[in-house]
Amino acid sequence: MHILRKHIEEIISLTDDEFDFILSHFEQVKKRKHQYILQEGEVANKEYWIIRGCLKSYFFDEKGKEHIVQFGMENWWITDYESFVKQTSSKIYIDCIEDSQLLYITYENREKLTAEMHKMERFWAKKSKYGRIALQNRILSLLKNSSKERYELLLEQHPTLFQRVPKKLIAAYLGVSRETLSRLNS
Amino acid sequence: MHILRKHIEEIISLTDDEFDFILSHFEQVKKRKHQYILQEGEVANKEYWIIRGCLKSYFFDEKGKEHIVQFGMENWWITDYESFVKQTSSKIYIDCIEDSQLLYITYENREKLTAEMHKMERFWAKKSKYGRIALQNRILSLLKNSSKERYELLLEQHPTLFQRVPKKLIAAYLGVSRETLSRLNS
Repeated sequence: MHILRKHIEEIISLTDDEFDFILSHFEQVKKRKHQYILQEGEVANKEYWIIRGCLKSYFFDEKGKEHIVQFGMENWWITDYESFVKQTSSKIYIDCIEDSQLLYITYENREKLTAEMHKMERFWAKKSKYGRIALQNRILSLLKNSSKERYELLLEQHPTLFQRVPKKLIAAYLGVSRETLSRLNS
Repeated sequence: MHILRKHIEEIISLTDDEFDFILSHFEQVKKRKHQYILQEGEVANKEYWIIRGCLKSYFFDEKGKEHIVQFGMENWWITDYESFVKQTSSKIYIDCIEDSQLLYITYENREKLTAEMHKMERFWAKKSKYGRIALQNRILSLLKNSSKERYELLLEQHPTLFQRVPKKLIAAYLGVSRETLSRLNS
């Protein structure tokens, strides 16, 4: 079974024809480590699904400090959702932390596919709900947890991230300094 | 036109029959100031749409400090989304800051309505996307902005909130102390 089909069928069931129709809306692309898939100021016209690899979305504050919005690994979706949904200029960058193999769907194809196919509207609606829950939990964690607790929570939820992502990026995700992270990590 | 219909038709257009069918899935309820609609430990079985009034969702950390997850005013939707979507025990409370008039849809009715009616799946998918964007922006703001900037951003986005909500709750939303807020506010 195609790995994208396996991923979608975790939420909705599909016939062979339905999956072929869905897949015809996607394109495949390979990117090398450090290559961008989105830069600040561009309109995010694609949503990516990660077959293999690791990515980060991030921005710089006025002082030039990097903040990580999201990481992405196998089976995760990644884009700048504000830019993608509203078709406005992106405030963030997305690039590859590792060589990556990706499937993407354009904004137009996604609109077309969800309008034509209730099942895919339902699939992405569910994905969006889960994304919202994850973000809400990150907010609760930023409000109530100490750096140490946030670090331990991330380690618990995504242990493989710590093997694949440089420490300074973990720090930029947690909103702590590299030095604080070293202490937490020891 | 019914105010809920006006709200839904901002995203999708409906026939009279379609709206009647949708409305038949909702119930109306009135709550007085300080009354709960959800308590920690309960499963959130309803999503509320606010006809009139003001609500807050919140939790207490280990030190007993209150943190605001979300405010709700006219036209906003409110529930504990994690508890509602996963049908698990809620980690938060929701109660009324003012006397409030609400429409609600149960989990079962919402599942039924979205399964039967692609348009409503689409409506809530859009709402969920916008909710996700708002949460993402709140995270970016928590990561990069000072207390003063977060205060000004909230004031700019929701000026009426400041007339309706006690200062200590604004502080609990921004993650600052009451004293810091007083300084920002002066």
